[in-house]
Amino acid sequence: MSTVDGAPQDRVPAAVLPILAAAGEHVPEVLGDVERALRTAAAPGTDPLDRAALDTVAAGGKRLRPLLAILVGGPAVADPDGPARAAVVRAGVAVELTHTATLLHDDVLDAGLLRRGRPTAFARDGRAAATCLGDVLFAAAFATLAGGGDARALRVLARASRELAQGELLQRADAWSTDVDEERYLLRCHLKTGALFEASARLGALAAGEEDEAFARFASAIGVAFQLFDDVLDVVAPPEQTGKPRGTDLLDGTVTLPMLVARERDPALRDLDVRTITTTEQAAEVCDRIAATGATEVTEERARALVADGVAALPAGLDEARRTALGLVARGVVDRRL
Amino acid sequence: MSTVDGAPQDRVPAAVLPILAAAGEHVPEVLGDVERALRTAAAPGTDPLDRAALDTVAAGGKRLRPLLAILVGGPAVADPDGPARAAVVRAGVAVELTHTATLLHDDVLDAGLLRRGRPTAFARDGRAAATCLGDVLFAAAFATLAGGGDARALRVLARASRELAQGELLQRADAWSTDVDEERYLLRCHLKTGALFEASARLGALAAGEEDEAFARFASAIGVAFQLFDDVLDVVAPPEQTGKPRGTDLLDGTVTLPMLVARERDPALRDLDVRTITTTEQAAEVCDRIAATGATEVTEERARALVADGVAALPAGLDEARRTALGLVARGVVDRRL
Repeated sequence: MSTVDGAPQDRVPAAVLPILAAAGEHVPEVLGDVERALRTAAAPGTDPLDRAALDTVAAGGKRLRPLLAILVGGPAVADPDGPARAAVVRAGVAVELTHTATLLHDDVLDAGLLRRGRPTAFARDGRAAATCLGDVLFAAAFATLAGGGDARALRVLARASRELAQGELLQRADAWSTDVDEERYLLRCHLKTGALFEASARLGALAAGEEDEAFARFASAIGVAFQLFDDVLDVVAPPEQTGKPRGTDLLDGTVTLPMLVARERDPALRDLDVRTITTTEQAAEVCDRIAATGATEVTEERARALVADGVAALPAGLDEARRTALGLVARGVVDRRL
Repeated sequence: MSTVDGAPQDRVPAAVLPILAAAGEHVPEVLGDVERALRTAAAPGTDPLDRAALDTVAAGGKRLRPLLAILVGGPAVADPDGPARAAVVRAGVAVELTHTATLLHDDVLDAGLLRRGRPTAFARDGRAAATCLGDVLFAAAFATLAGGGDARALRVLARASRELAQGELLQRADAWSTDVDEERYLLRCHLKTGALFEASARLGALAAGEEDEAFARFASAIGVAFQLFDDVLDVVAPPEQTGKPRGTDLLDGTVTLPMLVARERDPALRDLDVRTITTTEQAAEVCDRIAATGATEVTEERARALVADGVAALPAGLDEARRTALGLVARGVVDRRL
C-alpha cells in the first residue's frame, strides 16, 4: 500500500524500488517530476477549489499509470531537458488526473465514504463539490496533455475517458444481476481499468515518438488483471489493507468473477438474491462462503494468466532493462505489492 | 425559443436570421457545419451511450456560444476549405459540448427534471447515466478542440471549465443566503455564464489567427447580461416560455439580483426566509411580490447597461457587418429573442 501523504518519494511503495532500479536512474526522477506537475495542474491557484484539488491529488494513489507511461517511454525520456521527458510528464499527469476524476465521480454515485482509508471528497465536502472537483480534474487532464500539441495523444485520452464512462454504466446496468457471463465481466474490467492502463502505455509510446500496439496490449492485459485482483481483494482482504469493509462490491450490487465462479460451486450462493445483502456483517459472511469455494483462487489464476499473456506480448526487440521493469510491474499488479 | 429537434437549420430561431444575414452568407453554413460536427463528436458510435449523447445534443440549445465564436472569427472563417473554418467549427463544437456537459451535471446536482420543456437525462436515465454522459461530453469537447493542435485553445477551454465549476460551487456556497452583495452575485454570473461566452470569443479569435481582448470583454459582458436576464425570466416568464415553473431558482435556494433588489424595497421580502419556500405555488407568489417592487426592471436595466458596455468595447476598426451582427447578438440576449 502506498503511504498516505508526504514528499513525492514517500509515495513510491518499497516494493516498487527494484522496478525503478531495474529500469534506470531516470525513472524515480521522472516520477518526481510527474508528482510536482500533478500538483500544479490540479491546483494552479489558492482558492477553495484549488485546496480541495490538492488534497485529493495528494491523498494517495500508487501512480501506477504514470509509471507505466514512463517505462513504456523508455530511454527516450531519460534526458531531463528533452522533449520526450516533457511529453511523458504531461502524459503521466493526464492519466493520473483522469483516474482521480473518475474516482471522485464514482464515490459520488456510490455514496462512497472511504477511499484508501481516508474520507472521500464526497464524504468531506458533499455531492456538488465532489462532482465539480471531478469536472475540474478532467479539464486539467486534457489541458495538461494539450500543452504538447499532439492531437493523437488527446484522442487517446478522450477514448479512454469514454471507455471509463462506458465501464461505469455497464457496471450499473449489470448491478444486482448474477446473469452476467465471464465475457461481459471481462469487458467491464477492460472498460473500467484496462482502458486507462492501455492509454497510459500509448501515451508513453507517443511521448517517445513511437506508436506501439504491443505495449498497448501488455498494458490492457495487466489493467484487466489488476481489476480481477481488486475484485479478489474485495472478498478476502481485511479492511486494514484496503481501507474499506469486505464485500463492498456486493453491497453496491457489483457482481464480480469470484461470485460468478462461486455460484457454480455452491448452490446456496446460486440461490442467493444479492439485493438481500444489506449489512457489512452479511457481506462478510457471503465473502467467506465465496472464498470457501476456491473461487478467489480461480480468479487469481485468471489474473496471473492475463499477466503472463501481457508479458509474452511485449515487443521482441525490447531492451532487457525495460523488459525486467515491465515484468516487475506486471507481477506487482497481481502480487498486489503495487 | 429554439425548436426542439430536426435538421440543423430548424434550430436557428427566426430572430437570429437577421444576425446571420448581417454577418455574411457563410455564417449559417458554418453553424450547419458545427451542428453536424457536434453530433459526430458526441456520438462517434452506436452504443447506448452514443444514443443518449445524441439525444442530449439534439434536444436543443440556441447554439449561441458557437455563433459567438463564428462571428468573432470573422471573414477568416468564410472559406469552407480554409484552416480557420475547421478551427472555428472545432471551437463551436467544443464550447457547445462543454455547455451541455455542465447542464447535465447541474441537473444531476439539482435533481432537475425538465429543461427546455423536455425531461432531462437525469429524469430519463438516472443519476449515474447523466453524470457519466456529462464526463463523456467533457472529454469529447477537449478531444475535438485538440484536433487542431493549438495548446492556447485548450488552455482557454480548460480555464472556462474551471470557472464553470467555481461558479457552480459559489452558487451552492451561497444557497439560501440573502446575505450576498451585488458584486458577489455578478462574480457568480461571470463564472456561471460569462466565462464560457468569453472563451467562445477567444476561441473564435484564435481560429482566425488572432488574440483579441476586446472581443473577450464584449463576450463576457453579454454573458453576464444573459445570466441577469435568465434570472429575470425565472421570476416573470410563464412556464410555457421557459419550460420550468416560475421561482425555480428560489426553490433551489439560488438568490438572484431581482430578489436582492426587491428585499431593499419590500420589508416582507426582507424578512422572508427563503428556506420556507417549498412549493411552486409559494414560489410563484414570492415572484409576484418581487416583480411588484420593480426589481425585475432594475435587473433588466443592469443587463442592458452591460450589453451597451460590451458593444462599446468592440474593437474600433471592426468592419460594419460584424459590428452589426455582434450588436444584434448582444441585444438579442437581453430582448431574449435569442
